[in-house]
Amino acid sequence: MPAVPVDVVGIGNAIVDVFAQADDAFIAANGLNKGSMTLIDARRAEELYARMGPAREISGGSCANTMAGIAALGGKAAYIGKVRDDQLGQVFRHDIRSAGVRFDTPPAKDGPPTARSLIVVTPDAQRTMNTFLGACVNLGPEDVDETLVASAAITYLEGYLWDRDRAKQAFLAAARVAHAHKRKTSLTLSDPFCVDRHRDSFLKLVHEHIDILFANELEIESLYQVKRFDEALQAVRGHCEIAVLTRGPKGSVIVSGDEVHVIDPAPLSRLVDTTGAGDLYASGFLWALSRGFGLARCGRIASIAAAEVIQHYGARPEADLKALVREAVA
Amino acid sequence: MPAVPVDVVGIGNAIVDVFAQADDAFIAANGLNKGSMTLIDARRAEELYARMGPAREISGGSCANTMAGIAALGGKAAYIGKVRDDQLGQVFRHDIRSAGVRFDTPPAKDGPPTARSLIVVTPDAQRTMNTFLGACVNLGPEDVDETLVASAAITYLEGYLWDRDRAKQAFLAAARVAHAHKRKTSLTLSDPFCVDRHRDSFLKLVHEHIDILFANELEIESLYQVKRFDEALQAVRGHCEIAVLTRGPKGSVIVSGDEVHVIDPAPLSRLVDTTGAGDLYASGFLWALSRGFGLARCGRIASIAAAEVIQHYGARPEADLKALVREAVA
Repeated sequence: MPAVPVDVVGIGNAIVDVFAQADDAFIAANGLNKGSMTLIDARRAEELYARMGPAREISGGSCANTMAGIAALGGKAAYIGKVRDDQLGQVFRHDIRSAGVRFDTPPAKDGPPTARSLIVVTPDAQRTMNTFLGACVNLGPEDVDETLVASAAITYLEGYLWDRDRAKQAFLAAARVAHAHKRKTSLTLSDPFCVDRHRDSFLKLVHEHIDILFANELEIESLYQVKRFDEALQAVRGHCEIAVLTRGPKGSVIVSGDEVHVIDPAPLSRLVDTTGAGDLYASGFLWALSRGFGLARCGRIASIAAAEVIQHYGARPEADLKALVREAVA
Repeated sequence: MPAVPVDVVGIGNAIVDVFAQADDAFIAANGLNKGSMTLIDARRAEELYARMGPAREISGGSCANTMAGIAALGGKAAYIGKVRDDQLGQVFRHDIRSAGVRFDTPPAKDGPPTARSLIVVTPDAQRTMNTFLGACVNLGPEDVDETLVASAAITYLEGYLWDRDRAKQAFLAAARVAHAHKRKTSLTLSDPFCVDRHRDSFLKLVHEHIDILFANELEIESLYQVKRFDEALQAVRGHCEIAVLTRGPKGSVIVSGDEVHVIDPAPLSRLVDTTGAGDLYASGFLWALSRGFGLARCGRIASIAAAEVIQHYGARPEADLKALVREAVA
């Protein structure tokens, strides 16, 4: 057992985000899937980058963002993910460690470079992600630190990992270790296209291995192949211990057995870039849950963390999340 | 001669900025020179980076920022500077080219990595820069594209280059080519510490080679070793054709022979990060001058460009500078 057990350990794709602004004409001209995450290969990444405007690089990765948010709230978080031993890998490592997250996965010494996501932000603050997975494809079961997972109250997994076989094995290995030690497991469905790609195995996974499920409206509707949010809500009820469903400006709904909470979004003073909204919602929720708070309070804290991150570029918190939460839920 | 002659070609240190927020206690604890640029070696860069919080990477470099600003205003700008063939070098190249600036200097194939400046931004929006010059030390006279310099109305040089002998040679070679082709040369003093390091040779350089001099208050006082702004103003008068003196929130003063203009700063709605204020002032001024505008109008346009860049992180323009200038000087 490590000296300090962690509240949450996350496993995900370790990615540096490359943000550029563009208009809807750019989205159309380049055949991008607005508002979604599309996997691209090295050549397409090079082509698209060449067409994008001046950019800024900020560490990202859905699950890594969630862990950074938990640390910002004062929780103990750890991260498992694969970078290469290159400059962007150093940037990723620096940023997550200096955010207070434990990160000890060794970088790959060869193979593709550190992953990057080319993120186009349109004037409506929507983000369109084009991800070259790079070194992430080298994440495998050997990277799962079993002692760390066994010590964590919650093991949190990113649906995006399901796109690669060895990452999937890592993911299942971690879930088994967590449950063997009577810990909780959690999954975010990550993206509606990701759900489309893996619907059957996600349904089996949720049923067999997941205690706490995060999904947004489109993802949960896609999972159960229904057209109305309420149908998805009824379907997920009882499928896992806690289901946390986010709906953007409509707020969120939390379901656990007979308990159902409908949570309003936290107020915004401006909307800049929706990247990381779901990731930071998960930070707030998991942190609050690990503190033993009730589900409604977990949802309110989650909403505050999500609101902070969409008021600036980048998917990791910049303001003092602890203070924001203290004020709002005092 | 290139197909399209440029308005301004700039020669400078090609740097990627690494921005992190910190408080004054961090500045003190790490012995940083608040508000200035300090050169650091690779080891110190590594130590300081490890102590800094999560950061964002945005292409910078004083002169490169100025060229990006000229392109944003609709001018034709080119840049000469040295990166390495590494990931940060690719980032620098992408950002300056996609900003519309011609950049053809070949990257170094070996030696130190692409330069970075570790920039700490304090809550008062001041920036403290710690620059590891990296591949910039490989810039030499062989990198000066004489045809390009001969075609440019103005050749703009960064005082920071004076810190390295071969860059200094590149700098003088460019000035000679420019004058041989009856073009103008311009210099920014860059930094008061830089002026301290090179006072005598800067005085000689300004006298012999420079037509348009940019300096802020501290730099021009340091150059002439005087204690009051007005004394510096009187000293610089006649020393070069045009002297452009910036004074932060107090505005700027432009001197050319008998002409003296005192320009107010452009209004701000918020102050976020002063990085790039001087660089973008120079963009506005040089662009307007290359259009043949009068000096007072050049100063007003310069102030608008400077005001835009200090209202966000990063030292390159994000808003539509053309539109801002059109509105303000209509």
